[in-house]
Amino acid sequence: MSAFKTLSAKAAAQLDKELMSTGAFSIDQLMELAGLAVAKAIYKQYPPPQKPTSPLQKILVLVGPGNNGGDGLVAARHLKTWGAYEPVIYYPKKSTKSDLINRLVKQLQDLNIMEISTLDEIKSLLSKKGEVGVILDAIFGFSFKPPIREPFKDVIDYLSQNHESLPPVFSVDIPSGWDVDEGPTDIDIKASALISLTAPKPCAERFVKSGPNKIHYLGGRFISPSIAEKYAIEDVLDKYTGDELITKL
Amino acid sequence: MSAFKTLSAKAAAQLDKELMSTGAFSIDQLMELAGLAVAKAIYKQYPPPQKPTSPLQKILVLVGPGNNGGDGLVAARHLKTWGAYEPVIYYPKKSTKSDLINRLVKQLQDLNIMEISTLDEIKSLLSKKGEVGVILDAIFGFSFKPPIREPFKDVIDYLSQNHESLPPVFSVDIPSGWDVDEGPTDIDIKASALISLTAPKPCAERFVKSGPNKIHYLGGRFISPSIAEKYAIEDVLDKYTGDELITKL
Repeated sequence: MSAFKTLSAKAAAQLDKELMSTGAFSIDQLMELAGLAVAKAIYKQYPPPQKPTSPLQKILVLVGPGNNGGDGLVAARHLKTWGAYEPVIYYPKKSTKSDLINRLVKQLQDLNIMEISTLDEIKSLLSKKGEVGVILDAIFGFSFKPPIREPFKDVIDYLSQNHESLPPVFSVDIPSGWDVDEGPTDIDIKASALISLTAPKPCAERFVKSGPNKIHYLGGRFISPSIAEKYAIEDVLDKYTGDELITKL
Repeated sequence: MSAFKTLSAKAAAQLDKELMSTGAFSIDQLMELAGLAVAKAIYKQYPPPQKPTSPLQKILVLVGPGNNGGDGLVAARHLKTWGAYEPVIYYPKKSTKSDLINRLVKQLQDLNIMEISTLDEIKSLLSKKGEVGVILDAIFGFSFKPPIREPFKDVIDYLSQNHESLPPVFSVDIPSGWDVDEGPTDIDIKASALISLTAPKPCAERFVKSGPNKIHYLGGRFISPSIAEKYAIEDVLDKYTGDELITKL
């Protein structure tokens, strides 16, 4: 485990804004690359069996109301397209304003991806042993500030209290419920793995020290050296090798 | 070499249109995934040396006026970001209408990617032995119809006449100068490798039979089974394995 520089919540928001203004990236581009990185990391960390089961093992994708949720929607699409997992989407607070997010949802519908909308359905799904292989936590990202609102509070609470008997949780950017800069709050999701997008946030350091086998990926390989230098995260550029889109830190 | 189903120019245009209307994809998403697939295929087919040279070997990226050119711009960005090749862009007929294409160009400028604008500069660049490792042909795509206009005619002519002493040409979707459905015309670019995006076009069959060592990749892994069935290209879905974004046919 090598040390790494981190990007505060405020700096991460600023960097995103800069990528999409002077950097000339669209949110469509960035979210596609971010979600693809998430899917690649899940595939690498929790590869489906060499001989796929029929039906496929499921991945429960918990989708939050903002861009972190969007990354989850993109990841679900790629995993489905690859025939790696059968995604089941929990997306209770749908975006009404984002055309992109609405389109990502439509893309999933065209792949006949199943959606559930209540904690009871989550419990029922997870009660079937071996049916769900991984839980993808794409609820909150770097703009999250406690406290957690419903319906996510109850869901995270349930997953947290039962985590020892549940499939591993893979979190996008931050373990949902954590403060981005400060780390764990009284409710958190007990992630086994985390993918930091663009650069690790301060809570990623807390995450890797929070247990003996915490898995940490880096993804979102799209910033220029000048942006990396400006935000003092030059080291992320050197973490990758070859043409890989993700790397395990 | 396995056989494959193909998509006519007309069907390819229709499929693209459908992806971006009822399919709810944006051109930003599709071009990012297509360009990334192109970069992955180049990296796989012509991997840079294990110990990168300093300065890096160059890739000459020939960018046409439409979406095929856009795929080339995206590919150039990824190859640069990976530190695989130093792209040199030849983009003489810049889009004035496409906001996306203009933004892709800005993204390259932010990476300090060099641009040239004349055939003389191309000749000068290619005269330095070993300086350019690959030529990426992203001039014309599936909507191309002969005849070739200037300045591309002279460029393709030059590359064609001198191909035995030049670096290998990697073409995006069709070898530029070829008729999408009919194949070679009197001027064509003598590609060594081709990547078919979404599905091979009819001329891809001619391409693989046009010489003993013709290399053919498939990329653009984003269509749903229902779209594949509708366009009678179901077989493309099974060509890929695991989480790969491209596959060699």
